[in-house]
Amino acid sequence: MNATAHSTQPLRILVSEQQRVQQGERIRACATPAPELLTVDDVEQRGAQFDIAFVSRDVTGLSTKHETQPETARFYNAMRASPSLRWVHIHSAGADRPIYMELLARGVTLTSSAGSNAEVVAQSAVTGLLMLGRRFPELLRAQQQGHWAPLIDRPPLPADIHGQTAAIVGWGGIGQAIARILLAIGLNVQVVRSSAATTDNGLPSHAFEDIANVLPKTDWLILACPLSDRTRQLINRDRLALLPTTAHLINISRGDVVDEPALIDALGTGKLAGAYLDVFAHEPLASDSPLWTMPNVIATPHSAGFAAGNAGRVVQMFLDNLTRFAQNSALANVVR
Amino acid sequence: MNATAHSTQPLRILVSEQQRVQQGERIRACATPAPELLTVDDVEQRGAQFDIAFVSRDVTGLSTKHETQPETARFYNAMRASPSLRWVHIHSAGADRPIYMELLARGVTLTSSAGSNAEVVAQSAVTGLLMLGRRFPELLRAQQQGHWAPLIDRPPLPADIHGQTAAIVGWGGIGQAIARILLAIGLNVQVVRSSAATTDNGLPSHAFEDIANVLPKTDWLILACPLSDRTRQLINRDRLALLPTTAHLINISRGDVVDEPALIDALGTGKLAGAYLDVFAHEPLASDSPLWTMPNVIATPHSAGFAAGNAGRVVQMFLDNLTRFAQNSALANVVR
Repeated sequence: MNATAHSTQPLRILVSEQQRVQQGERIRACATPAPELLTVDDVEQRGAQFDIAFVSRDVTGLSTKHETQPETARFYNAMRASPSLRWVHIHSAGADRPIYMELLARGVTLTSSAGSNAEVVAQSAVTGLLMLGRRFPELLRAQQQGHWAPLIDRPPLPADIHGQTAAIVGWGGIGQAIARILLAIGLNVQVVRSSAATTDNGLPSHAFEDIANVLPKTDWLILACPLSDRTRQLINRDRLALLPTTAHLINISRGDVVDEPALIDALGTGKLAGAYLDVFAHEPLASDSPLWTMPNVIATPHSAGFAAGNAGRVVQMFLDNLTRFAQNSALANVVR
Repeated sequence: MNATAHSTQPLRILVSEQQRVQQGERIRACATPAPELLTVDDVEQRGAQFDIAFVSRDVTGLSTKHETQPETARFYNAMRASPSLRWVHIHSAGADRPIYMELLARGVTLTSSAGSNAEVVAQSAVTGLLMLGRRFPELLRAQQQGHWAPLIDRPPLPADIHGQTAAIVGWGGIGQAIARILLAIGLNVQVVRSSAATTDNGLPSHAFEDIANVLPKTDWLILACPLSDRTRQLINRDRLALLPTTAHLINISRGDVVDEPALIDALGTGKLAGAYLDVFAHEPLASDSPLWTMPNVIATPHSAGFAAGNAGRVVQMFLDNLTRFAQNSALANVVR
């Protein structure tokens, strides 16, 4: 028997039915003896206990942080019903849903999939920036009307994007990927993050609390930070007022990083030129929110991170951590 | 008197009224004796002759290659009426309008502003790529309906963009800027251009005539070449058929590089996943063209290159060339 194996009892893991079918073999190969895979049905029907839960993307489904669908609730309730639960791996980068707070409070170890969709989210953020900078919302409206309306007919022309300044708030995998692409496009990049130390790649950096120093010279304020006590309502009414009226906001982090009513005021009164928002104070965004219809706003349904390759990357992160867990090694991406 | 000045007669230059007012001082400073600036009124009212013409963006206005507005036609006619005309500088990168062919045939030297909007056009091309790759046309339609419709609810999810392959056709300033940005996003780049020699930055390269070798493995076919005998109808029906059905076409070059009816067929029958088109076989695009309404097509009115900084860059290119002209030096950006 392998010296690193710490138990002769198989680890018991709660997974979705989909993961059990598609990934069962790989999961069972991560530890000796092979883990036992349980589904919500097993928990509900025979009160099965388990040590680990894998909250894959298919578990969350269409649930949002604020509105939990019945199938997702069954999985959450199964986790609540297993006192032996020691570790939960989740598919997302952010770990701010109430259930995760509840698990942490119980002493359950939580690991995230931070990094798994970093490139994808960064691509979405840059898409929003370029669309706003190149006036695509306006161009697409003309397209819908079958109307040939060159930009030159409606001065002023769009400002040159190269040479503008982006302030990237948050310096995880997403923020770093955004910076890499924007530098290639030719923007200047300022970083706002937990520390004021210059980044490894030499970009000027500011602590969250000093963001006011950056805002007056920012053309693109890009929120890519986790939601925490330091970032909640970071972009409040006073700070929005420090941005030039030609500035745009991009939020692919969490809605609560921004004072949403203040943002709506700024967008509606011309104090801010426009925004690309993938996240909102409440999700789904209410059907009567003015953000749906503002001509200078691109609003998308928390979809910046969806891509075909994510599921495979998340599974690999879980499997790597499961191997570590079985060997009593330190887990990666632990949420603190 | 300066030894490089070649004449005591001032150079006579046809410019727009706007350029005469805004740039007159700078233009007159480029040569000794100071050039004489003429407008279309001078030519029409007193048959004034001139040596040089500056076709700035405001001269072209809303005219397209196919439909010339009356004000633009007056400028063109003034150039036709001046046998002393020796050199014309134009604001665009491409020089394929009939008037330019006519001037070249007369022996007039033509210089372009190639490079002046290269970054801007590249940004537009990348915007179109990212919008299609991240499904923004679909997301914006849902936004217009105030409908929260996450992508995860409509599998398959968008493919990962990083790791895909772009074939960039044309290796001028625009193609090179597109490559730089796409490499930063994480795409593989193949180049199709006049020569098959590997590019200076080490990218694999293929001659225009060998494009068929590249197409079967291309996710993004990006047209950024000048219109020439070698590129006219380069993307014909047979070559479109070589692309994977998941591929997208981006055209920010000239409409005539593509067989437009064949493209419409491919887009309508699912042989091509989508397209971003800024240029068309005829401009303005006819109001009954199916390209306006296809859900997988982004159609914009030849506006990929419009930006506030262009005019200044074009003027600087003209002034630099004017200084060279006055000194009998070789001009930059000569169209052959």
